[in-house]
Amino acid sequence: MTSETLKLAMDLISRASVTPEDKGCQELMISRLEPLGFTIERLRFDDVDNFWLRRGTDAPVLAFAGHTDVVPTGPESKWDNPPFSPVVDDEGMLHGRGAADMKGSLAAMVTACEVFLQEHSDHQGSIAFLITSDEEGPAKNGTVKVVEHLEARNEKIDWCIVGEPSSTELVGDIIKNGRRGSMHGHMVIKGIQGHVAYPHLAKNPVHEVALALSELTGEVWDNGNDYFPPTSFQIWHIQAGEGASNVIPGKCEVNFNFRFSPEVTAEQLQQRVLAILDAHELDYDIEWHVSGQPFLTQPGALVNAASDAIRAITGRTTELSTSGGTSDGRFIAPTGAQVVELGPVNATIHKVNECVKASDLDDLSRIYQGILTRLLTDALSDELSC
Amino acid sequence: MTSETLKLAMDLISRASVTPEDKGCQELMISRLEPLGFTIERLRFDDVDNFWLRRGTDAPVLAFAGHTDVVPTGPESKWDNPPFSPVVDDEGMLHGRGAADMKGSLAAMVTACEVFLQEHSDHQGSIAFLITSDEEGPAKNGTVKVVEHLEARNEKIDWCIVGEPSSTELVGDIIKNGRRGSMHGHMVIKGIQGHVAYPHLAKNPVHEVALALSELTGEVWDNGNDYFPPTSFQIWHIQAGEGASNVIPGKCEVNFNFRFSPEVTAEQLQQRVLAILDAHELDYDIEWHVSGQPFLTQPGALVNAASDAIRAITGRTTELSTSGGTSDGRFIAPTGAQVVELGPVNATIHKVNECVKASDLDDLSRIYQGILTRLLTDALSDELSC
Repeated sequence: MTSETLKLAMDLISRASVTPEDKGCQELMISRLEPLGFTIERLRFDDVDNFWLRRGTDAPVLAFAGHTDVVPTGPESKWDNPPFSPVVDDEGMLHGRGAADMKGSLAAMVTACEVFLQEHSDHQGSIAFLITSDEEGPAKNGTVKVVEHLEARNEKIDWCIVGEPSSTELVGDIIKNGRRGSMHGHMVIKGIQGHVAYPHLAKNPVHEVALALSELTGEVWDNGNDYFPPTSFQIWHIQAGEGASNVIPGKCEVNFNFRFSPEVTAEQLQQRVLAILDAHELDYDIEWHVSGQPFLTQPGALVNAASDAIRAITGRTTELSTSGGTSDGRFIAPTGAQVVELGPVNATIHKVNECVKASDLDDLSRIYQGILTRLLTDALSDELSC
Repeated sequence: MTSETLKLAMDLISRASVTPEDKGCQELMISRLEPLGFTIERLRFDDVDNFWLRRGTDAPVLAFAGHTDVVPTGPESKWDNPPFSPVVDDEGMLHGRGAADMKGSLAAMVTACEVFLQEHSDHQGSIAFLITSDEEGPAKNGTVKVVEHLEARNEKIDWCIVGEPSSTELVGDIIKNGRRGSMHGHMVIKGIQGHVAYPHLAKNPVHEVALALSELTGEVWDNGNDYFPPTSFQIWHIQAGEGASNVIPGKCEVNFNFRFSPEVTAEQLQQRVLAILDAHELDYDIEWHVSGQPFLTQPGALVNAASDAIRAITGRTTELSTSGGTSDGRFIAPTGAQVVELGPVNATIHKVNECVKASDLDDLSRIYQGILTRLLTDALSDELSC
């Protein structure tokens, strides 16, 4: 029997909403949520569809956050099934682009509210949805703009559940209660171009920078803390030379990325990088881009509700983690909201043959219900004890 | 008044013989040399024209070596005059592609023989020409093949004058009595590709190799000797990363070149590079290509004749040098020949608006005559004392 959650997930997957396209996913969600008493606010910024829905006017506000856009499929010929024609295979796996990231979560959020509101239409506080179609792309006209819109009218989110696929082996085994910051650096080491036969007339920028790069890669930036792994530095691109074997290159480009814990600030990292470069008397230009500040949601009401709900539904003790890539949680946490990411198993995300265990989506819907019950009512509902 | 040397140089320059094209330059030279009693041997290898001419059958053999091909012009619009329409400007400079490298030298060689043979048709030994049209290109079907051809029949060159533009400010100020060796290395440092957010699952090849590169660039390979500058190591290309800011690259490519003195061998350099790489426990592939062994012509009959002739014609004390790029001398010297490079000023070679002082070509012709006289007769000719 196909559950309501699975049916909705398949309906969403069949819409080929590659970033920044939404392809009607958001209207499908709205058509399910509007009858439940949510107030609808469609927020289109540039070419990006977003919405903010809210049921209730009181605090606290528990918001579900997520995205309807998906990453490109890659070569469709490599998929066992067409990526936008969802199917459940003999082993109960739901296949399709977005099955895990994160249309399964969106479906679970909607059905969780449907079931929850059947019994608790008089819940405390408010339930909200913050949905974008620009998470996998530039992320400039999505969540960040909706958050600005809410802040402008002083509307606050207290608790936010981001539906990102946080689980690694079994649904609920890991929730993310924070994320490292991310900062990009692009530096150009300037030398003097010349002929390899006349090195005394040139200055080789690769030679100039080699020892500094070695020091940067060996540096201990911090030791992390209870919730964060140590800050890491990675060079993801280096290039010098135009292909002529007798030409000493005139410049060397290096791109690197920091994933950093709250034990150090972006500004401190910049200063330490510059100190290492300057110690080698390098001639360089450097540009910085901080794409996300680190954030942490300490154990408290939201983390406890999520952990308890996971244990009640699955019997699992969840693990808190701040590892992995960035998510739109980075835009919501700075408003003061508690933020956790809780979604299905992420093993196949961004790959061909993306898939998720179909029954996990039902579990996820019940976990979301359990969180709603714990945070917005005084009692646990019946379905949590089954 | 336009000299015979200048006229011939202009005739050669007007033939657009970009590597490996000869465009009739060699037949033009042959048409001048054949009447002088040279035996003609045309040697075409693949798409490359070459010739070997010899006048006389006795030893010693004094050979003029050179090339009729020229490097491409670059954008012709940047030339003040069309590159294949030679002109002499108001300041006496001959303009055109190949004026300095090395059609001016070819013309001077031909007229030197014409004048020399008017007085010394009964010279000692033999005069020869080894001319190719593949010096500026791959250099695979040119001088190297002609030398193999001569060696196969045990024909030896005793003294060789290569017409490469050796002079830096005034004609004859420098002659090259040797060249450094040249060896290329191409290495691929192998890491493990991964996501920058999960560095513990990856191995960044740029990080792995940085310290080794620093050591390679700081290494003193030798201290050179009386004739050679120290061996130099230059990285001319480095590349890692595909442009995705969240991907740790799986490999890093590094291309480098050694210019090495005879104080060290190619094999020794390879072993020392491998020792440095292995000390850092790198996983790598490496390929080597020795494009030229170092050679040296010690002061002796040829160097002395060239120095004396230069002093007699120009009043200059010439300087011996082994610096600069490679030339076809690298293929001739290993046969046991004494080799010097002696040609006009090289300031504009391989550039737009290549040019040479027209009267320098006349001096060069007289210097070549002076060498012929010193090495193949018992007396200095009259024209050297004027």
